[in-house]
Amino acid sequence: MNSTTRLRKLIAGGQIGRLAGAHDPLSASLVEASGFDGVWASSFTISAANGLPDMSLLSMTDYLEAAGRMAAVCSVPILADCDTGFGGVPNVAYLVQRYEAVGVAGVCIEDKVFPKTNSFVDHGQELLDADEFALKVEAGKNAQRDPDFVLVARTEALIAGHGVREALHRAHRYVDAGADAILVHSKKTSPREVIEFLEAWQGRAPVVVVPTTYHDWHFTDAENAGVSLVIYANHALRAAVRSMSEVLSSIESSGASTSVEDLIAPVSEVFELTHLDKWLHLEKQ
Amino acid sequence: MNSTTRLRKLIAGGQIGRLAGAHDPLSASLVEASGFDGVWASSFTISAANGLPDMSLLSMTDYLEAAGRMAAVCSVPILADCDTGFGGVPNVAYLVQRYEAVGVAGVCIEDKVFPKTNSFVDHGQELLDADEFALKVEAGKNAQRDPDFVLVARTEALIAGHGVREALHRAHRYVDAGADAILVHSKKTSPREVIEFLEAWQGRAPVVVVPTTYHDWHFTDAENAGVSLVIYANHALRAAVRSMSEVLSSIESSGASTSVEDLIAPVSEVFELTHLDKWLHLEKQ
Amino acid sequence: MNSTTRLRKLIAGGQIGRLAGAHDPLSASLVEASGFDGVWASSFTISAANGLPDMSLLSMTDYLEAAGRMAAVCSVPILADCDTGFGGVPNVAYLVQRYEAVGVAGVCIEDKVFPKTNSFVDHGQELLDADEFALKVEAGKNAQRDPDFVLVARTEALIAGHGVREALHRAHRYVDAGADAILVHSKKTSPREVIEFLEAWQGRAPVVVVPTTYHDWHFTDAENAGVSLVIYANHALRAAVRSMSEVLSSIESSGASTSVEDLIAPVSEVFELTHLDKWLHLEKQ
Amino acid sequence: MNSTTRLRKLIAGGQIGRLAGAHDPLSASLVEASGFDGVWASSFTISAANGLPDMSLLSMTDYLEAAGRMAAVCSVPILADCDTGFGGVPNVAYLVQRYEAVGVAGVCIEDKVFPKTNSFVDHGQELLDADEFALKVEAGKNAQRDPDFVLVARTEALIAGHGVREALHRAHRYVDAGADAILVHSKKTSPREVIEFLEAWQGRAPVVVVPTTYHDWHFTDAENAGVSLVIYANHALRAAVRSMSEVLSSIESSGASTSVEDLIAPVSEVFELTHLDKWLHLEKQ
Repeated sequence: MNSTTRLRKLIAGGQIGRLAGAHDPLSASLVEASGFDGVWASSFTISAANGLPDMSLLSMTDYLEAAGRMAAVCSVPILADCDTGFGGVPNVAYLVQRYEAVGVAGVCIEDKVFPKTNSFVDHGQELLDADEFALKVEAGKNAQRDPDFVLVARTEALIAGHGVREALHRAHRYVDAGADAILVHSKKTSPREVIEFLEAWQGRAPVVVVPTTYHDWHFTDAENAGVSLVIYANHALRAAVRSMSEVLSSIESSGASTSVEDLIAPVSEVFELTHLDKWLHLEKQ
Repeated sequence: MNSTTRLRKLIAGGQIGRLAGAHDPLSASLVEASGFDGVWASSFTISAANGLPDMSLLSMTDYLEAAGRMAAVCSVPILADCDTGFGGVPNVAYLVQRYEAVGVAGVCIEDKVFPKTNSFVDHGQELLDADEFALKVEAGKNAQRDPDFVLVARTEALIAGHGVREALHRAHRYVDAGADAILVHSKKTSPREVIEFLEAWQGRAPVVVVPTTYHDWHFTDAENAGVSLVIYANHALRAAVRSMSEVLSSIESSGASTSVEDLIAPVSEVFELTHLDKWLHLEKQ
Repeated sequence: MNSTTRLRKLIAGGQIGRLAGAHDPLSASLVEASGFDGVWASSFTISAANGLPDMSLLSMTDYLEAAGRMAAVCSVPILADCDTGFGGVPNVAYLVQRYEAVGVAGVCIEDKVFPKTNSFVDHGQELLDADEFALKVEAGKNAQRDPDFVLVARTEALIAGHGVREALHRAHRYVDAGADAILVHSKKTSPREVIEFLEAWQGRAPVVVVPTTYHDWHFTDAENAGVSLVIYANHALRAAVRSMSEVLSSIESSGASTSVEDLIAPVSEVFELTHLDKWLHLEKQ
Repeated sequence: MNSTTRLRKLIAGGQIGRLAGAHDPLSASLVEASGFDGVWASSFTISAANGLPDMSLLSMTDYLEAAGRMAAVCSVPILADCDTGFGGVPNVAYLVQRYEAVGVAGVCIEDKVFPKTNSFVDHGQELLDADEFALKVEAGKNAQRDPDFVLVARTEALIAGHGVREALHRAHRYVDAGADAILVHSKKTSPREVIEFLEAWQGRAPVVVVPTTYHDWHFTDAENAGVSLVIYANHALRAAVRSMSEVLSSIESSGASTSVEDLIAPVSEVFELTHLDKWLHLEKQ
């Protein structure tokens, strides 16, 4: 089955699906190996892996390259975080062509103004006019070749403080324009406003959530509330930051790496993750 | 001071220097933040981050891109692991031009046959003829523009089981050809053969070591034995693999990310590492 | 129809097919617009467009990027010149995965030693052992997912001066290993040795020729002699070099661009070639 | 002398300088070989070479890659056309860091709204607020490390139909903000409005012109009128389009390449342009 078809079934299926964020092919492999249904190619964490804040500094080319390389090593589908679409309406048509061409299963675009700032920053959360964003959605949908390629429309109405009513208005507008699913983002510490959205939405189209701040919402509760897909968007990178920081400091202060040997994966595990044996087998034939 | 000059002083200075391996700009930033003197742009870990084994599958372009992006975000110098030089003699001249042009402070090339296999694999450790490798060193040195750009010649004689005498023979040949330093690699669990090398070498040129397997050799002992630079080549990536794996599994099995919140860096730490405030300041002006 | 299927029909069809070489998406578009059946993503001309000789200095990543971008803008299939496969047997498996993933319809690998030198250079034309090259062909074929993806095996036996008998021996060996077609390259000014090859070959598998030096061989003569595909490999780039050189010199010496206005395409033609109207239409909606 | 210093002397020197546009390293080499003082890395022609209209579809990463590769093969300085700066104020700071890091001597940013449309298109020529653009100029200047790196501020006031007075107002504003030179663009068929600008400007800072439409303005006349730098922005690409189109059509219709042999550069000329002998010399040592 194509990865596009798999992603489509995931969002449209009876059961909830779960993605986790990755910033490179290795973390994408670990997402897959840990049992998730797919990979979120997160622009926040891809930016961070490049040493940059999530402020539209990296370009479409960079994000595309990262997502394409994930697709090359994963069996589960990749859903790519494409920020605001990297410009205007033509940019969205262009990105859909390019992401589809490198084997990514779907993209998500959001209704903020380009250049955007990360949703957890108290600045720069201006929303694009809903009709203009709907044109982006429409152009994106018209650009895809594979009918199963997925376009998720993300509304930042709650992030920008415009409330559930505005989020619903925009979500309907975007589904009218052809969006395959709605990602409703919230930075509250409880899922209350998301639940309110879901109740009013009444399952018109699949809904995706990213419970970074309301992290104690169990996915079965989300499923019962009507969510189709939950994304744990940035935890792999944040785990890597913590452990790399600790391990490097420990080596630096202790003067040798002995102290960290038990805290890090053995070289053999890295070999395994990168399928060394399969590749060596070709070499040895 | 240029990063090339800084790297040169590091290897030629009275005190031992310490580098740690990075696979992307974020890990390079953490290497710098942890107090190391520079970054080793490791081909093993850059390959792994791309989901591939260290078998010359990624190309010079990929490694160059990774090292150049590290240089863009670090103040400490970057020493790039360039495997066998990615081909023949002209390839080494070409790589020196390209790495120097993107702000990398030095490169390291090794005397195995292209395509190479990672030194910890029991296969494919064939050495290149020493005279042919010396031509690579010479071509590399002739290609640099900045006189302080550093070329480290790495001998895999010990890895390939040819013994200390062969390692010394090759090291002298490479310094004759212009190498600025010798990396003598060993996969023994004790530094014994490296120490034997150092005793016979008598400080003719700076020596670099990578104590991945003989990890209990404290850097002050290495310094006393005559080492100029110690590289902790792959620990950051191995730390990341372990922690990402644990955190992702925990989210997957527990059904929410609450259980991992204390094990991962907060979002604010990622903001700080990527200098969000500095960039936002530009935005707000 | 997929581009892979189209390329397969082209080489296996009753009629001869014709490709022309391109070095970037624009020249690929012009190849298509001029009525050719497909595009040859030439490593000689892609190297030259990058200011480099055809000596394995550019990497697989660079060639892949160029071919993928051509595939993104062309309807006709792209056959990518992959030199020696960029390394050993695993590199060929890897390249097939990557080229297929970006929408290229087929690849061609040749039986010289890496790093290779352009076939028209009197130096560095050493052949790889035929059995070792057959392993590359086999690994490449095993790596493809789409059964219609095409792998052309190119023998440089005639280029290296080993004669028709060796070329035939190698061609049979490579078809045994799974090659979909044989490219038999010659730098003679007459097609005589190619014709001799074709007579003995007796149509066992499709044959591809590149009549750069025996340029007066009409394609219908080639077809009658048993050729399936003719490639005009580097004429677009050579045309561009000549005209750019003349036009730039004329502007420089005359002190204005008036003298060249009739020799160059109007800006509107560039707009048309790049489908400006189609993209603007999205903008204006 | 650094390429930044050379570019600075060029724009600030007593004599007029001349650049010509390039879309890849090969055309950049031909610009240099034809006697021009530097290369304009044109976003119109780089887009076109990629088969795309000049509408902010390619990203900063793509343009940077192209300009960096030109810098790698040229001795004359590269001035990179950076459109609107690819986003907001932080994007300009970021691009200056990146372009400087790959050896480009200077950048030019223009005062239109992102995403922009090519200046010769009758659509999408909206100007950015002058103060906001001045912030971009300031941020760009603050981001450079090499004091000789050049930032050219381009006003599209004449293109957008706002007249000479507005062009002057903006030019003064941008020089106040730190711009090293002003590019005043016009699409009139005579240089009249440019001359009017120059007369009022009175040489406050160097002025750059692009006489694509008023092509009969001899550069000595431009010099006498007070111009510091003339850019022949897209003629190389337009020459290539015309000749590639003719040569490919001729091969296609005649059935062989004999008819075009006299119209195209010989293979040996391509070898020479790419310095094959120099590279082979390394191989043969």
